[in-house]
Amino acid sequence: MTGKELFIMKNKILLAIADGLGDRPCPSLDGKTPLQYANTPHLDRLAEKGSCGIVDLYRAGVPVGTDFGHMILLGGYDLKDYPGRGPIEAFGEGVELLPGDVALRCNFASVDGDFLVKDRRAGRIREGTGELARALNGLEIDGVQILFKEATEHRAVLVLRGEGLSDRISDTDPKVEDHRINFARALDGSKEAAFTAEVLNQFLIRAHEILGGHALNQKRLAAGQLAANAILTRGAGKMPAIQKVTEALHYTAACVAAESTVLGVARLAGFDVMTDSSFTGNLDTDVEKKAGMAVGALKDHDFVALHYKATDLMGHDNRPSGKVQAIEKYDHMLACVEQLIAAREDLGNVIIALAADHSTPCERREHSGDPVPVVISGVNIRRDAVLKYDEISCAAGALCRMKGADFQATLLDYLEVSPKQGN
Amino acid sequence: MTGKELFIMKNKILLAIADGLGDRPCPSLDGKTPLQYANTPHLDRLAEKGSCGIVDLYRAGVPVGTDFGHMILLGGYDLKDYPGRGPIEAFGEGVELLPGDVALRCNFASVDGDFLVKDRRAGRIREGTGELARALNGLEIDGVQILFKEATEHRAVLVLRGEGLSDRISDTDPKVEDHRINFARALDGSKEAAFTAEVLNQFLIRAHEILGGHALNQKRLAAGQLAANAILTRGAGKMPAIQKVTEALHYTAACVAAESTVLGVARLAGFDVMTDSSFTGNLDTDVEKKAGMAVGALKDHDFVALHYKATDLMGHDNRPSGKVQAIEKYDHMLACVEQLIAAREDLGNVIIALAADHSTPCERREHSGDPVPVVISGVNIRRDAVLKYDEISCAAGALCRMKGADFQATLLDYLEVSPKQGN
Repeated sequence: MTGKELFIMKNKILLAIADGLGDRPCPSLDGKTPLQYANTPHLDRLAEKGSCGIVDLYRAGVPVGTDFGHMILLGGYDLKDYPGRGPIEAFGEGVELLPGDVALRCNFASVDGDFLVKDRRAGRIREGTGELARALNGLEIDGVQILFKEATEHRAVLVLRGEGLSDRISDTDPKVEDHRINFARALDGSKEAAFTAEVLNQFLIRAHEILGGHALNQKRLAAGQLAANAILTRGAGKMPAIQKVTEALHYTAACVAAESTVLGVARLAGFDVMTDSSFTGNLDTDVEKKAGMAVGALKDHDFVALHYKATDLMGHDNRPSGKVQAIEKYDHMLACVEQLIAAREDLGNVIIALAADHSTPCERREHSGDPVPVVISGVNIRRDAVLKYDEISCAAGALCRMKGADFQATLLDYLEVSPKQGN
Repeated sequence: MTGKELFIMKNKILLAIADGLGDRPCPSLDGKTPLQYANTPHLDRLAEKGSCGIVDLYRAGVPVGTDFGHMILLGGYDLKDYPGRGPIEAFGEGVELLPGDVALRCNFASVDGDFLVKDRRAGRIREGTGELARALNGLEIDGVQILFKEATEHRAVLVLRGEGLSDRISDTDPKVEDHRINFARALDGSKEAAFTAEVLNQFLIRAHEILGGHALNQKRLAAGQLAANAILTRGAGKMPAIQKVTEALHYTAACVAAESTVLGVARLAGFDVMTDSSFTGNLDTDVEKKAGMAVGALKDHDFVALHYKATDLMGHDNRPSGKVQAIEKYDHMLACVEQLIAAREDLGNVIIALAADHSTPCERREHSGDPVPVVISGVNIRRDAVLKYDEISCAAGALCRMKGADFQATLLDYLEVSPKQGN
């Protein structure tokens, strides 16, 4: 028997993430933050039964996106590991990237014979994009393999796989209609960028030929719809040589979420992903079903992340009372989680953690660099004097102020998977 | 007059280190940590009279070993400075390594003529190993100088000193009996590793010849004992080019401890080491003698580290009440320290600091990445509101949460030895 086989895993982690939770005082909420103002008995009880703190996801005063914020919370990744939007969207659509792949976000679009863009979303096409994508998937251009997959509505992802590629190429999406496609240019003087731009441009021409002649587009034209006869690209990103954290440290993890971005980051970190059409990313999401799926996933996974989106939307929309409502629904989700865990005896000792991927203050309507409140709660967690889960109370907790990657490493240490340094 | 002569040292530091002190709530202690549960009036008074905080030795959530934890607390060293077990054991036995030396931990063993291991500990030999070691010490093989020194019981340390050596070689100890010695192999493709393995293997053959013919072994055989006629090696480590912190920053330091690992790290950092046979590393250690030796060392040293081991043992054995008892004895040791200092007028202003090299939670029975509580106490130390020395109370102190190397640098700053950056 090896040391690994002898090892008995006794703790499990459920990490709940409220997107964009952190905020600032709102005049309409008596100068409180939405989290201070909301009635959150279950979140507060979790805070009471553990260690609290505040977390700077990347570093103090630096806003992070949902994608990078989740790369930190789920995988402890660094900024140098951030691959850009293209690769994360590709993972979100289930395309597994390899180091060196260049991925781009795409639209199906309608162009004339001179590549003049008539509609950037091909008449907001929703049906048949899978069939069109399959007509492009598997092409090979100058030794570069083309992976192409449809995404939601008119969107798709393109992956270039081969030697000597670069993501230092320009977007081909002109962003406005009645302009020609901006054929890709190298953004630096490297031969890799020049080669990648050349391959991409050949692909765009081939795609126009293939899609223009596709039976589905003939049907669309016959029905008076715009043909989805071209591809626009943006957000090229090259997949760095990063390891899936679950493989690196030998544990199992799952992520329950609605957002393809979050699901993409979860796949990149080696998590199994779980979603449902009732998870809307808004106030009407089915939090009871979400809680059930997350607790169910604890059976076969050491670490389960449970993502909740509505808090972020309310911040972006500057709706403090809506954010209060979203937080109270999040509190209900955690109540369900606790009830479901209490009804199970087969899960071992479940540690519940609360976090957020960034702050989205209502007044700012965008992500900010304000730290987020966090909790690690459980019978074997040091219990501090904090009685309430909010941005201010948690700052006085036993975790003090931490970096996001340190918070993630702290959670993993309860799984006993992090190697000891020294002897 | 030089700048050094002009310099007047006004503070001295006594740093008490309770090994593995940090813990988690224990069900048998009413959900408190052993340190929260224990009656520690003297530790609490030290906390009251200074600044408290929590320390991540290396980084949050990452467990460290006793050796690396002490390299941080005593010398502020980084992971890249960590030389591995062999060199630290060599320092522990008083062998001063030079950068580039490769050190290995050894057993005296009994083998047959074909290097088949009959007993990995040579019948648990305890007498005469010094004489056997001297027969091997000073050999030279292919230009590499051999240093060999006995350690406790059947153990010894081997140092290879010369150009072009590597620690990327395999252990020769087969770990089980009735197997042949695993002659060393290179663990990478470098010529240095191949050369080092070759030198080591020649040494093992020479050692077998020399020990086999040694008069002491003839006597052992005649007395019906196993001959200590071979050497097994493990844990090769190459000494990095690190400077002794006391030499780099021009101060004097001493370490009072029982553990050879701690004493080894102390020597590596340039500390004088002080020990006594009454220091057992367990509950029966003579804490009053330890306190006396440490306070005595303050006369001629700017910085004195006083190590206490029993807390760690109790964590490894999952004995919460034993850990409480160990902590209360540690509290008594600090009471003695304070009394002895108060009775002296020749020591200057002594600042007393409390720390730990890592947490060893009882429930985990191993080191964890939980932060440890620290105190810096004295009349000229900022006084916060913390009244009790424990993992939770200290987190609310004026030091907040720090890295171990930052804590060590903070202590050194009271010695006024750290150069000012900028002007």
